[in-house]
Amino acid sequence: MSENYEEWLDFAKALAMKAGEMIVTARENSTFVRDYKMDHELVTSTDIAVDQYICSRIVENYPSHCILSEESSPHMDLGSIGDDVPVWVIDPIDGTVNFAHGHHHVAVSIGLYIGDQRILGVVNAPFLGECFWALKGSGAFCNGKPLAVSSAQELRNALVATGFPYQKTALTPIVERVSRILHHCQDVRRNGSAALDLCWVAAGRLDAYFESVKPWDMAAGALIAEEAGAKVGYYLSNASAWPDVVNGEGLLVSTPQLYADFLALIDVDL
Amino acid sequence: MSENYEEWLDFAKALAMKAGEMIVTARENSTFVRDYKMDHELVTSTDIAVDQYICSRIVENYPSHCILSEESSPHMDLGSIGDDVPVWVIDPIDGTVNFAHGHHHVAVSIGLYIGDQRILGVVNAPFLGECFWALKGSGAFCNGKPLAVSSAQELRNALVATGFPYQKTALTPIVERVSRILHHCQDVRRNGSAALDLCWVAAGRLDAYFESVKPWDMAAGALIAEEAGAKVGYYLSNASAWPDVVNGEGLLVSTPQLYADFLALIDVDL
Repeated sequence: MSENYEEWLDFAKALAMKAGEMIVTARENSTFVRDYKMDHELVTSTDIAVDQYICSRIVENYPSHCILSEESSPHMDLGSIGDDVPVWVIDPIDGTVNFAHGHHHVAVSIGLYIGDQRILGVVNAPFLGECFWALKGSGAFCNGKPLAVSSAQELRNALVATGFPYQKTALTPIVERVSRILHHCQDVRRNGSAALDLCWVAAGRLDAYFESVKPWDMAAGALIAEEAGAKVGYYLSNASAWPDVVNGEGLLVSTPQLYADFLALIDVDL
Repeated sequence: MSENYEEWLDFAKALAMKAGEMIVTARENSTFVRDYKMDHELVTSTDIAVDQYICSRIVENYPSHCILSEESSPHMDLGSIGDDVPVWVIDPIDGTVNFAHGHHHVAVSIGLYIGDQRILGVVNAPFLGECFWALKGSGAFCNGKPLAVSSAQELRNALVATGFPYQKTALTPIVERVSRILHHCQDVRRNGSAALDLCWVAAGRLDAYFESVKPWDMAAGALIAEEAGAKVGYYLSNASAWPDVVNGEGLLVSTPQLYADFLALIDVDL
């Protein structure tokens, strides 16, 4: 392992904690304004402020690194980046709708990859007082305690999280997948933060999570889940323009012993 | 207002806070065991212990009152109770699946009604550090702060919570309702505690909540929502054997200006 990795992880943790404080303060003081993106996705002034804070600190400390950020650089051409260049993948607020509605499932997500390797991930949930992280090959942790996926053996006792797209097209296969999960598993959860759902699979609080998400929603959480023993795979064949390492299209992450069962269940072709 | 009401509310709050401590301690120490009811609904030894604590305290303090409790007296004949007898309605742990899986959405729910009137409700969420309560005609509160429903005016910006039954029959209309909500509203939440979903409508964190639930899931939360300005009604015509005051079959609770729109949306006849 590169010595840098530990340093970068500490740096990412410090960023995520400070960003979490900004988010809590903004909500306590109601100092944020709402706006909507082209596809009716909510964004607040706090998303933008936290993004600027995180990105400016990265540029300051690691000027040779690249940044893929939901808010400031979502259309970056990752294909043109050299295989040895560290790429930071940032979601300043994962769960913006939750943030604006006063819910607790809100996270700062900071991942870093190099070439085809996820190197580190930090997901801080400031309203729940939990910070998750992982470093490749070194395990996953929540507030310093090691994480492990659940030992669930049966679908009917499994708790499964998912999410729904902002765009209202193509909902039919998504509803069909939820219906199948409801029929065969214990229950569904829809918490509203993909990054946290991935961490909750890592923590054994959920047995599986599936959804089509963007790189910034999953870059950190996928590594945290993987390092806690989860299988990270796909229920859709890769039609994504993103590199594999940050591809969130048709993401299925679960405890390994039930992965094949979940895949068979949600492999809907409509 | 009867002087007793304030005294009963204080008593219920004290019970709910102590019960919350028992729940947090049981999870921290992993001192609970799991079991399944006839219909595959999960129950833990902590549900039973908390129920015994609450019910024994009520019997001790108010021997002339009745108790309807999910765990110890779910089949009580409420029709035979006089119209002037206070009836306590208890769910020791609302969100047992969440409790057992290490989630935060877990609540103690304590309601009281007399005749056809909901008198008081207390819903304590110990892992979130929030205690909600209401007294008929006196408003609703969270940790002492007054609550008010959201001012959402449009379905497409509305956040809607629902839940799913443990029994896997008759899921078709439920999935159809979720599909309609997904098509027309901002998003769905499935948090796993009906009592808290009702309180979150009261707090304006959710714009609506609908589900078929049992009396102990809704007796306290329905009053809290109502006292915060929500409209409490039904999307199913009353086929329940429970008195109206604790009927949770086809419950729809929302901010009043969108109630008719929500009702039209989920009025599925399949």
